[in-house]
Amino acid sequence: MEKISAGKNVFAFPMPVTLLGANVHGKPNFMALGWVSRVNANPPMIGCGVGRHHYTTAGIKENKTFSINVPDRAMMEKADYCGIVSGEKTDKAGLFSVFYGGLKTAPMIRECPVCLECRLVHAVNYPTNEFFIGEIVESYTEERYLTDGKLDMKKIDPLLLSMPDNRYWKIGDHAGDAWKSGKDLKR
Amino acid sequence: MEKISAGKNVFAFPMPVTLLGANVHGKPNFMALGWVSRVNANPPMIGCGVGRHHYTTAGIKENKTFSINVPDRAMMEKADYCGIVSGEKTDKAGLFSVFYGGLKTAPMIRECPVCLECRLVHAVNYPTNEFFIGEIVESYTEERYLTDGKLDMKKIDPLLLSMPDNRYWKIGDHAGDAWKSGKDLKR
Repeated sequence: MEKISAGKNVFAFPMPVTLLGANVHGKPNFMALGWVSRVNANPPMIGCGVGRHHYTTAGIKENKTFSINVPDRAMMEKADYCGIVSGEKTDKAGLFSVFYGGLKTAPMIRECPVCLECRLVHAVNYPTNEFFIGEIVESYTEERYLTDGKLDMKKIDPLLLSMPDNRYWKIGDHAGDAWKSGKDLKR
Repeated sequence: MEKISAGKNVFAFPMPVTLLGANVHGKPNFMALGWVSRVNANPPMIGCGVGRHHYTTAGIKENKTFSINVPDRAMMEKADYCGIVSGEKTDKAGLFSVFYGGLKTAPMIRECPVCLECRLVHAVNYPTNEFFIGEIVESYTEERYLTDGKLDMKKIDPLLLSMPDNRYWKIGDHAGDAWKSGKDLKR
C-alpha cells in the first residue's frame, strides 16, 4: 500500500479525556485536557500540555499545584462543556462537587472515578503551549472502581478523544495481556 | 461514596500503545511506548517518557530523530514483544518492514496504520526517565485509514493499555462529539 501524508499537525492515537483542575485567584476551575502523559516512573510524575492562553495556567503557577480528574462516560456533557467555555468568564466549578486533599489548593471533582493530586515540579515553555510536570502526591478513587485492589478501566468507563474528527469514544473489549501476549515470539 | 487512595504510582486513564523507533548504532530499533502525548500545538510537537536504561535512548540522542508508530490490533503480539525484549540483545526490526522518510534516520514501520516522523527538539532529565520532545515533521498513513480525508480511529483499530492490570483494550463505540455535546449546558 502506498504511504500518503496525513499532515504534520496530526493526532495518531486516541487521547484520554481528563479535566485539569487548579485554583485560579482562589476559586476552583477545570479545563478539558487530552494532552497528558506519565513522564517519570519514580517518583511518579505526570505532564500536561496546556495552551498558553488558558485561564487555568495562571492558577497552576499561582499555587504550584494542580489535579487531573478522569470523568466517566455519564459525565461527558459536563466534561465537554469544560472544554467549550473559559473559566475567565464562567464559573465551571459549580457543575461539580469539589474537594481538596493534603495540598489544600488542588481542587478535585468528587464525581470523577479517579483524581490525581499533583505538586508542580517543572514548567517548560514551548511556542504555543506550556508543559506542566507534576509529582502525583496522592490519588483518590472509590472501592467500586477497583478489582482485586487495582483500578479497573471497565468500571471507570473513561472517555477517549480523537482529533480532528472530534469524537469521543468508549473503551472497548479486552484485547489481550501486556508483557505476555508477545511471549511466543521470544526465541 | 467514600474516597480511598489507589496509591501514588497510579495510571488513571487508558494509554495509547505505540512503538518508538530510533536507529541505534546504525540499526533500526523499536520499543513499546505508552507514555506519549502532544506537547505543543504549533509547530506540532510530541513528547515521550522513556526509562533511562532503555536501549532506544542512545539512538534518539545519536541521531536527534525518532518515530512514533501506531500498531493496529492485528499487530498486538509483535507490539507486545517489543516491550518484552531489549534491542541490546535482540534484533526487533526484523519483525517489520522498515522505511525511512525525509529525516533519513527515523525508522518507521510500514505495517503500522500511522507513523510520525520526528526531529528531537528538547530532552529533559527526570529521576528515572528522560522526556524527549520532538517536532512532527511528517506523518505517514494510507488512504484506507481515512474518512473524509481525516484519520479514522475505527479504521486504524489502535490498542490501549491499562496498568497495573496490564491489559490491552480495543477502542469502543462512538460516545459523542467533542466541542459539541456539552453545548446545551451553555447558558
